[in-house]
Amino acid sequence: MNLGTGLLLADLAGVAVFAASGGSAAVAKRLDLFGVVFVGFVAALGGGIVRDLVIGEVPPLAFADWRYAVTAAVASAAVFWLHPQLARLRRTVLVLDAAGLGLFTVTGTVKALEAGVPPVGACIAGMLSGIGGGVGRDLLTGEIPIVLQREIYAVAALLGAVAVAVLVVLGVAGPLPLAAAAALVIGLRLVALRRRWSAPQAGPA
Amino acid sequence: MNLGTGLLLADLAGVAVFAASGGSAAVAKRLDLFGVVFVGFVAALGGGIVRDLVIGEVPPLAFADWRYAVTAAVASAAVFWLHPQLARLRRTVLVLDAAGLGLFTVTGTVKALEAGVPPVGACIAGMLSGIGGGVGRDLLTGEIPIVLQREIYAVAALLGAVAVAVLVVLGVAGPLPLAAAAALVIGLRLVALRRRWSAPQAGPA
Amino acid sequence: MNLGTGLLLADLAGVAVFAASGGSAAVAKRLDLFGVVFVGFVAALGGGIVRDLVIGEVPPLAFADWRYAVTAAVASAAVFWLHPQLARLRRTVLVLDAAGLGLFTVTGTVKALEAGVPPVGACIAGMLSGIGGGVGRDLLTGEIPIVLQREIYAVAALLGAVAVAVLVVLGVAGPLPLAAAAALVIGLRLVALRRRWSAPQAGPA
Repeated sequence: MNLGTGLLLADLAGVAVFAASGGSAAVAKRLDLFGVVFVGFVAALGGGIVRDLVIGEVPPLAFADWRYAVTAAVASAAVFWLHPQLARLRRTVLVLDAAGLGLFTVTGTVKALEAGVPPVGACIAGMLSGIGGGVGRDLLTGEIPIVLQREIYAVAALLGAVAVAVLVVLGVAGPLPLAAAAALVIGLRLVALRRRWSAPQAGPA
Repeated sequence: MNLGTGLLLADLAGVAVFAASGGSAAVAKRLDLFGVVFVGFVAALGGGIVRDLVIGEVPPLAFADWRYAVTAAVASAAVFWLHPQLARLRRTVLVLDAAGLGLFTVTGTVKALEAGVPPVGACIAGMLSGIGGGVGRDLLTGEIPIVLQREIYAVAALLGAVAVAVLVVLGVAGPLPLAAAAALVIGLRLVALRRRWSAPQAGPA
Repeated sequence: MNLGTGLLLADLAGVAVFAASGGSAAVAKRLDLFGVVFVGFVAALGGGIVRDLVIGEVPPLAFADWRYAVTAAVASAAVFWLHPQLARLRRTVLVLDAAGLGLFTVTGTVKALEAGVPPVGACIAGMLSGIGGGVGRDLLTGEIPIVLQREIYAVAALLGAVAVAVLVVLGVAGPLPLAAAAALVIGLRLVALRRRWSAPQAGPA
C-alpha cells in the first residue's frame, strides 16, 4: 500500500467516524432523517472543505470524489437507524471520534504541506481539518463548540500537526511515522478524556 | 432569451426573495436597519458565495457583479420599511422562499456542472446553493437552522439537483426542462408545507 | 516607509487588537487557555481569511505568513494571563477594537481592489474584513453578533470602505489619505459608542 492509498483510506475512515458523531448529536436533538444526514455531512466533510479551500484545491475533495459524500451519507444514516444500540456504545463513539481527530489532523497537515503552505500555516490548516467538522456540528445544533470546552481536544490536534510538520521537514514522513503521529493525537485525547485533563483556565478576576 | 440571461434572471429573483426572508427574520429579532440588511445579505448571497468558492469562481459573483449586492440591499431594506404589510402577507413570503429554493438549486447545480464538478458533487453544491443562505440567516439570528427541522426542505432541493444533473447528463438541459426542475422543488416544498410532510424521525431510544 | 510595509503593519496591529477582543470574550465565558487562544485566532484572522478566499489569494495570508498566527496567539494568550488588569482597562479595549475595525476595513478594501474586484464588491469585501472576525467570535461564544445590534459598527466600516474605493478610483490612495479613511471609521465608531448612536430600528408592527 503506497502513501497515497493510505492517506485516502485514513481520510475516508475519518469521514465515517465524524459522520457518526454528527449523526449522534443530531439524533439527540430529535432532528429528522435528513437533518441527521446533514449534520453528519457537515461534521464529516466541513473540516476538509475548509482545508481544501485554504490550500487552493478546488473543487474540494468532498465535491470532486463521490466516495466522500457517499461514505458520510451512509455512516450518518446508519446512526439514524441504529442509534438505540449506539447509545449503549457511547464509549466506542468517543474512541472513534478521537480516531477521526487523529486521522484528519495528519492527512490535513500532509496535504497542506504538499500544496506548498509554509509549516506554521500547515499546522493550523491540519488542526482545522481535525476540529473543523466538530465546530460546524456544534454550531448547527446550538451548542458552544466542544473544542472550546475544558478537555484537551484541539491541543492534541495541534501537537500532532507539529509532529507531522517536523517529520516532513526532516524528510522521514513515511507511512509508519505518520501513523505514529496519528496515534499520538488519539492517545493524548483518550488519556485526557480518562484523566479529565484540561488546559489551564483563567482564575476569577 | 438565451439560457445565460435566464440563469441570471433566475439567480437575481432568488437573491431578492431570500433577502426578503432574511430581512423578515431580522426584523422579528428587532435588529436595526443595518442588521436587517446584513442578515438579508447573508441569506441572499451566502449560498452563492459558498457555491462559487467551491467551484473555483473567484471572486464570487456576489462580489464581481454589483447587481447581486444591490438587489439584496434593496429587497432587505424594502422589508424593513414595509414589514407591517408583509406580516399580513406571511403566506406570500413562504411561497417566495420556496421559489428562491427552487431557483438557487437549479442555477447552482448547472453552474457546478459547467465548472467541471462531477455529478454527485454538483448535486451537493446545488443543494447548498439553495439552502446555504437560510442556514446563515438562522445561525446569525440564533436559531437552529430551519432546514434541520421537520418539514421537507433540503430534501426537495436535493431531488431538484439530481433532476438537473440527469437533464444535463442526458444533454437535454434547455430552459424549459430546467424550469420544470425548479417547479418540481417549489411544488414539493409547498405541498410539504401544506400537508406538514416531513422525513422520518428517530423514535425514542 | 512604503505603502506595502504600512499595510502589513496596519494589518498586524488589527490582528493584535482583534485577538485581544476575542480572548476577552472567551475569558468571560470561562474557556480554558486553548479556547481563549482559539477564539482569539478566529476573531483576529477570520475576517482576513474570508477576504483572501473571496479575492483568490490562496493560501490566505493567515496561513502563508507565520507572523499573522504568532501575533494572534501572543495577543490572545496575553489576555488570558493579564485579564484582571484588562478588566479595568475596558475603555482601552473598546478603543483598540475600533482601531482594528478601521485598520482591517482599509487594508481589506485596498487588497480587494488590487486583486481586481470591482468597486462595489471590494467595499463589501473590505467591510467583511473589518467585521468578519467579530461575527465568528460571537457565533463561537453563543451570542447574536454584536455587529447586528444597535450601535453603529458595520455602517462605519462600510463608509470607510467606500471612502477607500473613492480614493483608489481617483488615484490618490497614498498612505496619508488611507490613514485618514481609517481614522474616519475609528472616529465614527467611537463617537457612536459615546453618544449611543444607532441606525433606525423598525417600529412595532
